[in-house]
Amino acid sequence: MDFFPSALDNLIDKFATLPGIGRKTAQRLAFFVMSLPDEEAISFADAITEAKNSIEYCAICLNLTDGEICVVCRDTGRDAGIVCVVPDSKGVLAIERSHEYKGRYHVLHGVISPMNSIGPDDIRIKELMARVSDGDVDEVIMATNPDTEGETTARYISRLLQPFGVKVTRLAYGIPVGGSLEFVDDATLMRALEGRLEM
Amino acid sequence: MDFFPSALDNLIDKFATLPGIGRKTAQRLAFFVMSLPDEEAISFADAITEAKNSIEYCAICLNLTDGEICVVCRDTGRDAGIVCVVPDSKGVLAIERSHEYKGRYHVLHGVISPMNSIGPDDIRIKELMARVSDGDVDEVIMATNPDTEGETTARYISRLLQPFGVKVTRLAYGIPVGGSLEFVDDATLMRALEGRLEM
Repeated sequence: MDFFPSALDNLIDKFATLPGIGRKTAQRLAFFVMSLPDEEAISFADAITEAKNSIEYCAICLNLTDGEICVVCRDTGRDAGIVCVVPDSKGVLAIERSHEYKGRYHVLHGVISPMNSIGPDDIRIKELMARVSDGDVDEVIMATNPDTEGETTARYISRLLQPFGVKVTRLAYGIPVGGSLEFVDDATLMRALEGRLEM
Repeated sequence: MDFFPSALDNLIDKFATLPGIGRKTAQRLAFFVMSLPDEEAISFADAITEAKNSIEYCAICLNLTDGEICVVCRDTGRDAGIVCVVPDSKGVLAIERSHEYKGRYHVLHGVISPMNSIGPDDIRIKELMARVSDGDVDEVIMATNPDTEGETTARYISRLLQPFGVKVTRLAYGIPVGGSLEFVDDATLMRALEGRLEM
């Protein structure tokens, strides 16, 4: 496509690096940005720069924040004794959506994945251990994704936590609320049976 | 989600304004950009600014270009007497992919769409008329999309062109190459029959 200006090609390339965005979609997005009024396109660029410049990891839980400490860790109404371990900031978002959880978080920024050469030292486990060894934590809730890598990571961390005598729990597996039994996969049904509760 | 930094919320909002990008995808993209190394995120922002600043409409065909005249219009090997009318720059890209066309283009930057209050004066028809009335054009090929708005636009323009005595053609309708008859819709089959050629 060398009949397009190189700056446009470059922008298409950038969009194509985003996850889930293929070449065609990248073209569509780049053309759309080109069709925007100047000030809107520039404010898009500014939003990226500003977010990147102003946002850091919370000094306590490593969630994204624009202060030194994130709003969850700053909130004195929340229980600092409970720490929910999530793979990334999207995990925080998901748990917060339940409006149920009143503890704090720890963001791992990844999961252990030998396939992708991501070992325990490549994610933020050390920081979690430091928090727990400080002695203020009573319970650690593992909320990694329900897949092999998430499971591996959860087990690895829970083994590391054993010497500290802290309670380690895990999100329950089971049938999704509002789901239909016939569409629930076998593995989930098995877990739901295993975890059955008295009524 | 007011527990996320406002700069991040703002970036999510920006991504969500892109066509075909919903709230969830916008979040995913924003988080991804946050996870990039600083220089990569900044170079994304720069790509937008630079594309927007350096790219203009070609003075002849209104396609996107970084010079005054685009590479197609600059190419003396192409036939300036044939003008292919496309709705947008993506149309140029599509026709070029055929490697068949050796004429020039005219980019309308939209189609007539009463539903969206886009009238003939809102798209670049005037510029096409000016090119034709200059007398160098022998044939105008209408390559608008094969939908109602594209058809309407093509018919409107071809009526305007009548007084100039220029040849006006349209891309052929028919069954797509490599397609299977059973999946071709009725309207297309009808057009394919109407436009049948002797073998």
